[in-house]
Amino acid sequence: MTSTRNVAADQLRKFIASAFEACGMPAHHAARMGELMAEADIGGQDGHGVFRLPMYIKRIQAGGMDIDPDIKVISERTATALLDGGNGPGHLVMSRAAELAVEKAKTCGVAWVGARYSNHAGPAFLYARMPLAENMIGLYVAVGSANHMPPWGGTDLLLSTNPIAIAIPSHDEPDIVLDMATTVAAYGKVKTAADRGETMPEGWMIDKQGQPLTDPTRASEGLLLPIGGPKGYGLSLIFGLLAGTLNGAAFGKDVVDFNADAKSKTNTGHFVIALDIEAFMDAEAFKKQIDGIWAEMKSSALLPGVESIRLPGYRLAAVSAEHRENGIEIPAALSARLDGLADELGIKRL
Amino acid sequence: MTSTRNVAADQLRKFIASAFEACGMPAHHAARMGELMAEADIGGQDGHGVFRLPMYIKRIQAGGMDIDPDIKVISERTATALLDGGNGPGHLVMSRAAELAVEKAKTCGVAWVGARYSNHAGPAFLYARMPLAENMIGLYVAVGSANHMPPWGGTDLLLSTNPIAIAIPSHDEPDIVLDMATTVAAYGKVKTAADRGETMPEGWMIDKQGQPLTDPTRASEGLLLPIGGPKGYGLSLIFGLLAGTLNGAAFGKDVVDFNADAKSKTNTGHFVIALDIEAFMDAEAFKKQIDGIWAEMKSSALLPGVESIRLPGYRLAAVSAEHRENGIEIPAALSARLDGLADELGIKRL
Repeated sequence: MTSTRNVAADQLRKFIASAFEACGMPAHHAARMGELMAEADIGGQDGHGVFRLPMYIKRIQAGGMDIDPDIKVISERTATALLDGGNGPGHLVMSRAAELAVEKAKTCGVAWVGARYSNHAGPAFLYARMPLAENMIGLYVAVGSANHMPPWGGTDLLLSTNPIAIAIPSHDEPDIVLDMATTVAAYGKVKTAADRGETMPEGWMIDKQGQPLTDPTRASEGLLLPIGGPKGYGLSLIFGLLAGTLNGAAFGKDVVDFNADAKSKTNTGHFVIALDIEAFMDAEAFKKQIDGIWAEMKSSALLPGVESIRLPGYRLAAVSAEHRENGIEIPAALSARLDGLADELGIKRL
Repeated sequence: MTSTRNVAADQLRKFIASAFEACGMPAHHAARMGELMAEADIGGQDGHGVFRLPMYIKRIQAGGMDIDPDIKVISERTATALLDGGNGPGHLVMSRAAELAVEKAKTCGVAWVGARYSNHAGPAFLYARMPLAENMIGLYVAVGSANHMPPWGGTDLLLSTNPIAIAIPSHDEPDIVLDMATTVAAYGKVKTAADRGETMPEGWMIDKQGQPLTDPTRASEGLLLPIGGPKGYGLSLIFGLLAGTLNGAAFGKDVVDFNADAKSKTNTGHFVIALDIEAFMDAEAFKKQIDGIWAEMKSSALLPGVESIRLPGYRLAAVSAEHRENGIEIPAALSARLDGLADELGIKRL
């Protein structure tokens, strides 16, 4: 049995890139995929990093995703654009979208770039964080790649976990980065609980009779619950309309379950907003104020049993620093799957 | 004792306008206040309509809010603007912000307009809904006017219910309008429960020991809980940074409790986004697709005990239609307060 192994970030990037290259993906695209997917693992979102590589490769091999997509602007104003992702990997489509949004926001102050005919793009924080280097705030929303939630009060799976990420730069403190599903638990957490033989807390899922479902091996009979009940349902619905319907991308019953079907075009929709801080105030002054907000929030008296106050982005910064320094742990089961994939593709094992 | 009374929408508008005029507000501003505040009552958000009139008048009389504000653009790009609200009523500042956002979005595709030195603006849906008439999508976020929530894990009241509203136009179905606080319950609901002598459900508030607080008369010792735990905390924090800090408006400990202090400038911050549907697709086709989404969601099988699926905006449309037809019920206690106010101002009673 393959055991857990620890890999350096750059080793992981190169392995991912080599897998895509072995499928015929142009080298510059493959390198970008390696960078972005490894960044998910570095940030501790291990359900969205190299873990997804076998699935992406399977989709490419099945003809369900294009390795050299023609990503093009099909509709444009000075502060908006709609991209056709050419059925390419979401990572390539949405980094292009973020670049374009940043470019437009430099003159317009804000820009909103949507995409259709894209695919799963990994963790939402990747794209929300891109504008930060230019003293901008970033926001990213996606239609999730499989429906696990009904409309509030219903039982048909018409909605996904439709996540949002918002990133705001700090000066010395970690950047504020919120990356959240509109459901109480992302579906990946349910799968992880099943893998570990754990039960789920009440509040994650209910069954079709409305009773709490806590056995994750029965997840296929269950319904994810939205945060705040009808509020999270409303957010999921509206994020789906903005990231999906408005872009001419799939939403509702048209969403293809990318786990169950590797061949059909998913027509995944997302959008990204870049907002230039300098359109409102001096960016340095703003970032120092964000440092002040960190200090202010952390100064609060604590509830019993709580050790410290955290801000969104704290864990991302801490885990990223640790992983860049000490490498990333790849669990044994995943390690074995990646070895199998490497052998199949005829590339060097991780 | 004054009894409950039923008033026509136009009667309510005129009463509100006459109260502001009696304080010296220019007639066109007073009329706009009447329109927008009555619209809150028409939409069923009765905690944000004429209910607030005595408080607004008190603030004007105390010198805490300007009746003829100099609302001006202090920073601008083609798709953004920052308004100084001149310490005017939030309704006047944010309708100006929405108009400007719509104007800019007509050419740019999207626009983001923020404001500082504003005040409480009533219900969030008012401003999110303004762009709909121009085939646009609207989004509005505000820093709440009093802090009732700590950072996650803390007990200091550094955050407000910071609400968001998003409005998306339909063709024949009601427009989709989500208007929600980032807390499980808005503070107004706590006050209503106290007025009615009811207990609150667990999950609305905890005390400073982290125990459920269900007695609304003890609300001043309590902490509102965010939706989805740390997720709602993250949303409230980030909405506060975007609507407050980025605009140079109050956030965190700088927020003035507008219930407790009628004199200090609140420096309330908000922002509104207008997004032109035509920058992405044909607006008529989009609105028909939204009708289709209504039908699709409503077609879902139901959980036991549920009568039908609703979409956000359903209740707003139904209640508004009923109130426009049959008038608005003013509860006896409020009615008495408004009579007292009318007598004090020397205007005709409602």
